[in-house]
Amino acid sequence: MAHVVPRQKLWLERNGRIAFSDYRVGLLERIGELGSLAAAAESLGLSYRRAWGKIKELEANLGVRLVVSEVGGPGGGHTRLTPLGQDFVAAYRRFQRRLEVALGEAFAAELEPLLATGLAEH
Amino acid sequence: MAHVVPRQKLWLERNGRIAFSDYRVGLLERIGELGSLAAAAESLGLSYRRAWGKIKELEANLGVRLVVSEVGGPGGGHTRLTPLGQDFVAAYRRFQRRLEVALGEAFAAELEPLLATGLAEH
Repeated sequence: MAHVVPRQKLWLERNGRIAFSDYRVGLLERIGELGSLAAAAESLGLSYRRAWGKIKELEANLGVRLVVSEVGGPGGGHTRLTPLGQDFVAAYRRFQRRLEVALGEAFAAELEPLLATGLAEH
Repeated sequence: MAHVVPRQKLWLERNGRIAFSDYRVGLLERIGELGSLAAAAESLGLSYRRAWGKIKELEANLGVRLVVSEVGGPGGGHTRLTPLGQDFVAAYRRFQRRLEVALGEAFAAELEPLLATGLAEH
């Protein structure tokens, strides 16, 4: 039997532009873990410039401040999430998990029985 | 206040290849309405060859026969959906609608309150 699985991609838009996405939440999460935009960017294979541009872009699109940077010091600058940035990451992960569950349920209810029938006939 | 909206893209995969999607269900639906692959392809801005290739590809991926063609006759050939093809289209549309509802609910529950707070502070 063919192993057919449902997939979904989620994102948020504002005025037709991507305001938040799986990719962007991953970048924020990495900043939260590593305390450094440079380290977060490197761990995701992004240039520092590109990662910084993404953060500024999504702050502008959402209209909220998500990260705070401190320049200089012995180990170079640090970047951390604001409390709102932390809340956003957690809320977006819950949003994703709800829809993963809904995806599995909708597939099982609507498509799986039909696929099983169609493939059995074949 | 920023008007942020949730979006999702849905599809089915088999062995890592796209087996069904919004684009493909639209093509099948148009075939069902118009009774002709050529007319369906034209209405979607696809070449006949490309539309036919898509249909064959998704039949192979799902392992089911979705359309039947009759060659010749006064108006040229005709293509119609098999009963299973019709059931697929209807089931996929129900699958989509369930997830549209779930998307709105998850967004309202998890992200909307936070966006409203964040933007009010701003």
